[in-house]
Amino acid sequence: MSDQTALHGLFGSDSRIINLGLENFAANAAASGASAVQVDWRLPAGGDQRAVAALDKLAAGAKVDIEAANAEGLRRILAAKPTIVGIGLARDVVPGMAQDLILHAGPPVSWEKMCGPLRGAVIGGLIYEGLAKTPAEAEALAASGQIRFDPCHHHDAVGPMAGVMTASMPVWIIENQTFGNRAYCTLNEGLGKVLRYGAYSEEVLERLRWMASDLAPILSDALQAKGPIDMKSIIAQVLQMGDEGHNRNRAGTSLIIRELAPYLVMLDYPKEKIAKVLSFLNANDHFFLNLTMPSAKCTVDAAAGIEGCSLITTMARNGTEFGIRLSGLSGRWFTGPAGVVDGLYLPGFGAADAARDIGDSVITETSGIGGFAMAAAPAIVKFVGGSPQDAIDITKRMYEICVGENNVYQIPVLDFRGTPTGIDVRKVVETGILPAINTGIAHKTPGIGMVGAGLVKPPENAFRDALIAFAEKYAR
Amino acid sequence: MSDQTALHGLFGSDSRIINLGLENFAANAAASGASAVQVDWRLPAGGDQRAVAALDKLAAGAKVDIEAANAEGLRRILAAKPTIVGIGLARDVVPGMAQDLILHAGPPVSWEKMCGPLRGAVIGGLIYEGLAKTPAEAEALAASGQIRFDPCHHHDAVGPMAGVMTASMPVWIIENQTFGNRAYCTLNEGLGKVLRYGAYSEEVLERLRWMASDLAPILSDALQAKGPIDMKSIIAQVLQMGDEGHNRNRAGTSLIIRELAPYLVMLDYPKEKIAKVLSFLNANDHFFLNLTMPSAKCTVDAAAGIEGCSLITTMARNGTEFGIRLSGLSGRWFTGPAGVVDGLYLPGFGAADAARDIGDSVITETSGIGGFAMAAAPAIVKFVGGSPQDAIDITKRMYEICVGENNVYQIPVLDFRGTPTGIDVRKVVETGILPAINTGIAHKTPGIGMVGAGLVKPPENAFRDALIAFAEKYAR
Repeated sequence: MSDQTALHGLFGSDSRIINLGLENFAANAAASGASAVQVDWRLPAGGDQRAVAALDKLAAGAKVDIEAANAEGLRRILAAKPTIVGIGLARDVVPGMAQDLILHAGPPVSWEKMCGPLRGAVIGGLIYEGLAKTPAEAEALAASGQIRFDPCHHHDAVGPMAGVMTASMPVWIIENQTFGNRAYCTLNEGLGKVLRYGAYSEEVLERLRWMASDLAPILSDALQAKGPIDMKSIIAQVLQMGDEGHNRNRAGTSLIIRELAPYLVMLDYPKEKIAKVLSFLNANDHFFLNLTMPSAKCTVDAAAGIEGCSLITTMARNGTEFGIRLSGLSGRWFTGPAGVVDGLYLPGFGAADAARDIGDSVITETSGIGGFAMAAAPAIVKFVGGSPQDAIDITKRMYEICVGENNVYQIPVLDFRGTPTGIDVRKVVETGILPAINTGIAHKTPGIGMVGAGLVKPPENAFRDALIAFAEKYAR
Repeated sequence: MSDQTALHGLFGSDSRIINLGLENFAANAAASGASAVQVDWRLPAGGDQRAVAALDKLAAGAKVDIEAANAEGLRRILAAKPTIVGIGLARDVVPGMAQDLILHAGPPVSWEKMCGPLRGAVIGGLIYEGLAKTPAEAEALAASGQIRFDPCHHHDAVGPMAGVMTASMPVWIIENQTFGNRAYCTLNEGLGKVLRYGAYSEEVLERLRWMASDLAPILSDALQAKGPIDMKSIIAQVLQMGDEGHNRNRAGTSLIIRELAPYLVMLDYPKEKIAKVLSFLNANDHFFLNLTMPSAKCTVDAAAGIEGCSLITTMARNGTEFGIRLSGLSGRWFTGPAGVVDGLYLPGFGAADAARDIGDSVITETSGIGGFAMAAAPAIVKFVGGSPQDAIDITKRMYEICVGENNVYQIPVLDFRGTPTGIDVRKVVETGILPAINTGIAHKTPGIGMVGAGLVKPPENAFRDALIAFAEKYAR
């Protein structure tokens, strides 16, 4: 007697079944002639008993008004006005920056635990700073204890991929003009063999030196002539031009070029130097990423440190661990293993070459763009995989874990609905819906560079641990 | 006894009805308890007996293989490679151009029958050429018979809105590098008070003079330094960046700026002049329109003159009439009254101010972009009205009147489906689905300018007349 026949004996055609859980049970019952309805229900928190207990405790009563705290967090995110105000050297403008300090992406990590591309970028950074002459010297210095490592996030900064920032690097200065706080990010180097993907060959270092000697001063002077640039307006526009602000930045890069070009041409530099800057920008569609990142950073930073607020104000990865921070639990990281990216690879590379998820660029998703705005950028699926419908579905799903919608960042194809904004860790844990993140993929070996791009799942336990700690502090 | 009750008597609940035609009949029958199915069927050719007879005759047998001719037409459209090759003065490059000749948009029209904005542009053009000193002088000259008027389309050219081109105006030279044919179009002046919307104040003329003295030579030199620009590739890209190539051109304008900027900065002009060019481009998102138009023109022109081909190779309006031309009926225009645009108005203006549908810009739709690609540009509805879903529906409907899909121009949100391409006049007449056109709206009085933008229906009889003439020539 087959299972199907057995089922038919149990549930005749008169049976009416409401099924929760495993879907094939309902399908089998229906096949046997019963009327079966599948309810889309999952165990809260995936059945994790500590997480369920934390949700229950918070629901039973909290020491503070969490909804009000979250509303204040959302209000601050929506009120943010990220603005490009200048370019400076990290040592001059980034708080706490020093010659013996290397900033990196993600939560804290020691040299011993760093992944390949982060090590590669540290090697490149030390040579760039003149602290080492060869990769071997740089590795020895990095391991010696004479160099300090710190997350960019501990210095009001963010960095894509490896996110390595050293004292002599030029950085964008973005100010949240509503609240006065600032965020910093290096200038984007382009794709392929670049420091942020862990490459450190002479070609990479040469480009970094040109960026400091020519690119940054020229852009800085053009910016001074033009005056501050309203990034909130530009990000709003690029969402109507097929960008999502993380892995598709062709529109954003174009808008920055056309804003600056009339001022660049007026500068007192040899015109060959200005032409090289314009050619570099034109050849690098990711140039805008290093502007959306600090814009997102100074936006969500304004919502950090609110007592009782369960919104996520940081997500970041160092290639070893993925970490988050909550507004109401200032300064504490909650981490899990960095994920494996599911994506498309450049010719000649495959999944076996890939480093794990890395970079602070997920700050874009934290602020409600990037993966959260993928519906605005259907063409991105040619870069990260999937279909345009997937991109739309991903954005729609993100509304379920957010407390609000952006008032300025809109998605045309969703009838100009605001992007999902203000990720509530309670909603993430309860629904099991993880923040959608699209990302580049670095080679796992230091010195090689980019091998692809795709989508990645953050580790669920980081969110559960954060929720449990939040409940410990705030539940009655 | 109400109608409903009477109906109930006629059609009891046992009745099963298939309804064709008026939908409320099916609705009433259903309300009375009958099972009614509404079939989406309309009278072919709207019941126009001459048009139906023409369709029947063609279906019964033709002197040539129409399907093969249309396949050849589509092949040529898809094979086209529109390329920017330079900028020249109309008198030097446009075939047949002369000092006493004014080219205009749409099918032929006499001074007496010209609409307000076209008259305004003619007045401006005559003053610009130095043939008249005042608007009154210009009107008298235009009416005197000493000035010849001709459609742009009779000179391998196209012009937006009034489409006025005079001998001293600089024009883009676009070459279809597959077939060697060229198309010409003036440079875009921006929005607001501009010649193409019928304004001719000193501000308008001053800008035209600057365009000839500075803008055109500077862009021309940058273009010579850079080399030809592949418009097919750029149009393909802008369709992934929220443009549709007719009324939304922010991405296209941005891409042209970033391509040319590195060459502009190298030119031997005073840098103030180059900066002014870059500022002008940055302030004018429609700059790219005057590049998509001649690109579309040289694309469909390659498919003109094919014996037995029922594809539409021209659609154009002069503000008085809307006209089309078919590939298989070389040189013949079929016209109807220009439509009233249904759209959004600038503050202070309304439908009572609007001129009728005008301009050659519908060449974009003729080639399969513009209104046909609206699904790629959902944000355009903020400019022309409607919802993003309307934009998607409009594109989907256009597949029903086209013989193919573009191989390079793709719409991400439709899973990268090619844009509907190759409009078959038989399909238009049979289905009654008219080509979707989005457009700007000019003030009906000469000298004022733009008042809004929207969607417009072309006159059905132009398509029916063309079909009837086509059947007369080709049916057995």
